[in-house]
Amino acid sequence: MAKKEVKHFNIENIQNPDFLKGLSYKELDVLSEDIRQYIINVTSKNGGHLSSNLGTVESTIALCKNFDFLKDKIIFDVGHQSYTYKILTGRKLDTLRKKDGISGFQKLDESPYDHFECGHSSTSISAAAGLAYARDLKGEKYNVIAYIGDSAIQNGLAFEGLNALAESKHKVIIILNDNDMSISRPVGGISKMFRRFSTSIIYRKTKNVARKILKGRFGQWLLVKFTRIKNWFKRKVINMTIFDNLGYSVIGPIDGHYIRQIDHALVRAKKINKSVVIHIKTIKGKGYEYAESDVDGDWHGVGKFNVETGEINVKNAQVSWSSQYSALLKNEMSINNKIVAIVPATGHGSALDSLFALYPDRMIDVGIAEEHALTFAGGLAVSGFHPVVSIYSTFLQRAYDELSHDVARMNFNATLLIDRAGLVGNDGDTHQGIYDEAFLYTIPNVTIAMASRSNEALSLLKESTCNHGVFAIRYPREFFSNKVEEVKKIPYGSWKVELEGKNIAIVSVGPMTLKLKEALENEKLNVTLMNAIYLRPMDNAKIKNLLSYNKVIIYNPYATKEGFANALECELANLGYKGEIVVKCVPNVFVKQASIDEQREEFGLQIKDIIELIK
Amino acid sequence: MAKKEVKHFNIENIQNPDFLKGLSYKELDVLSEDIRQYIINVTSKNGGHLSSNLGTVESTIALCKNFDFLKDKIIFDVGHQSYTYKILTGRKLDTLRKKDGISGFQKLDESPYDHFECGHSSTSISAAAGLAYARDLKGEKYNVIAYIGDSAIQNGLAFEGLNALAESKHKVIIILNDNDMSISRPVGGISKMFRRFSTSIIYRKTKNVARKILKGRFGQWLLVKFTRIKNWFKRKVINMTIFDNLGYSVIGPIDGHYIRQIDHALVRAKKINKSVVIHIKTIKGKGYEYAESDVDGDWHGVGKFNVETGEINVKNAQVSWSSQYSALLKNEMSINNKIVAIVPATGHGSALDSLFALYPDRMIDVGIAEEHALTFAGGLAVSGFHPVVSIYSTFLQRAYDELSHDVARMNFNATLLIDRAGLVGNDGDTHQGIYDEAFLYTIPNVTIAMASRSNEALSLLKESTCNHGVFAIRYPREFFSNKVEEVKKIPYGSWKVELEGKNIAIVSVGPMTLKLKEALENEKLNVTLMNAIYLRPMDNAKIKNLLSYNKVIIYNPYATKEGFANALECELANLGYKGEIVVKCVPNVFVKQASIDEQREEFGLQIKDIIELIK
Repeated sequence: MAKKEVKHFNIENIQNPDFLKGLSYKELDVLSEDIRQYIINVTSKNGGHLSSNLGTVESTIALCKNFDFLKDKIIFDVGHQSYTYKILTGRKLDTLRKKDGISGFQKLDESPYDHFECGHSSTSISAAAGLAYARDLKGEKYNVIAYIGDSAIQNGLAFEGLNALAESKHKVIIILNDNDMSISRPVGGISKMFRRFSTSIIYRKTKNVARKILKGRFGQWLLVKFTRIKNWFKRKVINMTIFDNLGYSVIGPIDGHYIRQIDHALVRAKKINKSVVIHIKTIKGKGYEYAESDVDGDWHGVGKFNVETGEINVKNAQVSWSSQYSALLKNEMSINNKIVAIVPATGHGSALDSLFALYPDRMIDVGIAEEHALTFAGGLAVSGFHPVVSIYSTFLQRAYDELSHDVARMNFNATLLIDRAGLVGNDGDTHQGIYDEAFLYTIPNVTIAMASRSNEALSLLKESTCNHGVFAIRYPREFFSNKVEEVKKIPYGSWKVELEGKNIAIVSVGPMTLKLKEALENEKLNVTLMNAIYLRPMDNAKIKNLLSYNKVIIYNPYATKEGFANALECELANLGYKGEIVVKCVPNVFVKQASIDEQREEFGLQIKDIIELIK
Repeated sequence: MAKKEVKHFNIENIQNPDFLKGLSYKELDVLSEDIRQYIINVTSKNGGHLSSNLGTVESTIALCKNFDFLKDKIIFDVGHQSYTYKILTGRKLDTLRKKDGISGFQKLDESPYDHFECGHSSTSISAAAGLAYARDLKGEKYNVIAYIGDSAIQNGLAFEGLNALAESKHKVIIILNDNDMSISRPVGGISKMFRRFSTSIIYRKTKNVARKILKGRFGQWLLVKFTRIKNWFKRKVINMTIFDNLGYSVIGPIDGHYIRQIDHALVRAKKINKSVVIHIKTIKGKGYEYAESDVDGDWHGVGKFNVETGEINVKNAQVSWSSQYSALLKNEMSINNKIVAIVPATGHGSALDSLFALYPDRMIDVGIAEEHALTFAGGLAVSGFHPVVSIYSTFLQRAYDELSHDVARMNFNATLLIDRAGLVGNDGDTHQGIYDEAFLYTIPNVTIAMASRSNEALSLLKESTCNHGVFAIRYPREFFSNKVEEVKKIPYGSWKVELEGKNIAIVSVGPMTLKLKEALENEKLNVTLMNAIYLRPMDNAKIKNLLSYNKVIIYNPYATKEGFANALECELANLGYKGEIVVKCVPNVFVKQASIDEQREEFGLQIKDIIELIK
């Protein structure tokens, strides 16, 4: 008799996860494959976080089978691995990451199945602790689950959450998704612990022996009679993780692609009356060969690609600002051996891979530990090195205190390479890089600058190492034409006049300045265009020149007005400027997902809007 | 024969720690007592961190005896427990915490014996990791030590440092000063682990048995032959802390007041070729009965006091703003059971002790975990509770990201009670509360307000629970006369006209407004005084009224101008104001220790300066 063929699923027809309860494990396995294929297809068209989502298919299915997430709550840490969850809770992914479409993360207003929003790493345990606390205060009954990866759990916030939750009586089930991978490479003692934990022969042998003893009649008697001995045995012999130390019940490690095993673990976890960690082992990129064999992180967050060939679309003849600064940094490191670069898990995203091979001692990936990155930089600076911290604008937020207290306060020399400054497009509101300029303005001793073209970038990077304290260089998530230009040194704090005209002066920031210049020339508009390379300190001589114009337009499509624009406007007022000032900045709001272009359109920040304004 | 009397030491004559090497343990004990007495006397006159310094006398002596801190480096976490270190390195404490005097913390420009500056908690391990990395990169040889308490080590930043250092080959010696106390009460799984660790009978018995086995001939053979077994034994049986899990060598726990024992531990630690944790047990307040029996934290940071009676000076007939807001919160919690208050270890400082007894379920001390505090608040808020986070301005810096990303971004309702906003006086540059107003201004959806008098404070607190998203209420480290006044509701976003006059309008912020009002009345100056209770959103109607004045003075002695003052100035400019604007704010610098009054004097922020300006 031929084996019964399991039918495939029409993924787009899924309305809610209720159908899962009636499926056999064999059917669930087919469903896993179908979902996986769907995710690969969608991501190949829209871009997105592929690898992490391929790793979480089976565990998400098991979770949705075991819980009712209209009542129970789940928080996916970061949230970029929630595609399967979105699918099972009835969301179509064809508009994934597009304007007004499905977000790449969990969103409260997207579905009643979403209970909190993440985006930045390592928030899930603290948030889940809050949900559990609230549940118990209200006297309600449901499960709260935090689903977190092995990289995210190494961040300080996750640890604070773990530490606080450990002692509380408010139960949370933590799914620790351990794929021995971070955005880049795994770092830190916790990673090492995980590796030791799963590979040590002694550990495995001991565990098996202990299990056998405990399973026997004598063992059972021991367990029943002597809880203390049981705990001792569990803590000292069977498990040896930080979670045990903190007082959690720990289940696993188990195979995170084996639904039956996860199923059983979840059933057990529900019965335990304190917080539990279920440690699952998964393979990032599981089921798609290109992603599975990825060691660099190419398939972590990916653009459009060809499913068959694994070829990722890249815009030709254009260089990203990340690559540009990477090349400049490489050159600086070759001539200045005092430079030590620190990157919090975003080395691949900021195109720094090749530097790690070149300068293994002076390139440090600290993992998702932005706070440590800055305080560590302080330690290097006081010892005579020049730290260069490469960091995304949105993640720098997490190190506000350390930047101020441990670096700027002691007026140490350090360079910040702030990648993805400005609007970031499809990642949406959790990842916008529009706030750093303003919050850097609130910290004493910090220079802030932004280049419009490659030769300015070089000049800024060189200047940043010349005893100016903290020197922040912002650059956007954009490409630019890599014209070869003469390198001129830009004096510290000075602006560049791009066009001389009359009546109207535009003070413009960043790469859009060049596009604006082109448009002004094309339209033959006789106005002055200043390229405000230094946002702090400002160019006082040039500001005095502004006083003779009837109208000053401050154009900064890379930041809110609370930093540079406000400071310049106040400075003009203080100098007695009586003309009109028009500020064109990103509004100080949380900006939802769309393409960068669509976001600029919405805020009237396109070149055409400025041209219109002048006319 | 009579025992030889050990002579007492003249503490003020100590020039450097070199003399320690020639002293017997008996003499070192006498020295400890003399230092302790000196610290008690100095602190009774100048105020300061008494308890923590009494707990660290012996361990600091042992450290200075074993290391040469002109070559070796030491970082005291927070740094407020470094008085003994200051004494032994030749600093007199009579100017402790005074203007141009000795800082209450380590300071780079104070002594060649100071190698980094702390102030905020939990930075020492990351900074020490930086020093050690730099040392090895330069190929130099010296020891790097981080001295950290059991509360500070539970913070996320400390964990990131521990995690990063664990895997690195750059050795740091960590002294874990475990006194089972935080600023307030100990919280979290780590505390629990420490308690379990030191009290468990099974642990102690096992340890002793294990030690005996290992000391025997068979044990020695085992140790030599089978490193793996040794490690297994060490990890699984002898020690059971997170430090072992992370891969550290651990020595202790040992008695932190027993110099000989610490001595031996340090000698061992020097020989080990990887990072070591020396776990010492100490008694906070050791040797001064009032401090030793303190459970509330009265003697943590203390004002002047009477050494004999233990009576702490308090200014009579005056109420601190902390007490005032505590009383208001108590009242609000009694009528609104949706309020849950969260405080990161500063409950005593913010006068919230009595509320913990009253509302054990709705008052949560999360320890030194500011990030967790805010994300946890987000979890409560999404569940329908109204979180009130009580936090010092300077510590809110550490939760900038969580406040933005996990609370404000989702527009949750929450109240921030920002204590010690403005100049803080003697704690100096690491603790200034002058930046929060500006950095809160960079985050969307955040209301910012500051009351000048008690009835406004009540109105603000009530309003903060009425669906305005994040509502930040700032208040200074000051006292005020508790006049009973009628409570009037202040409409959301509105200012109050205190005096009506002409030509000049003053927009003033916070409690100093009342003193200014009094002075203006006394001097019979016919000017307008507006009390800008709401800093964001601003009162647009009142701003329009400002347009008719020749001169507008913005007086905010509680913040830098980068927040409210700049925003108001820009708003006036946008409305076409053509008069003069004078901004009197705290300059955006790091402000060194002095009394608040001296700091205001220096910046021209006294009432008399404003009166002068008007005349």
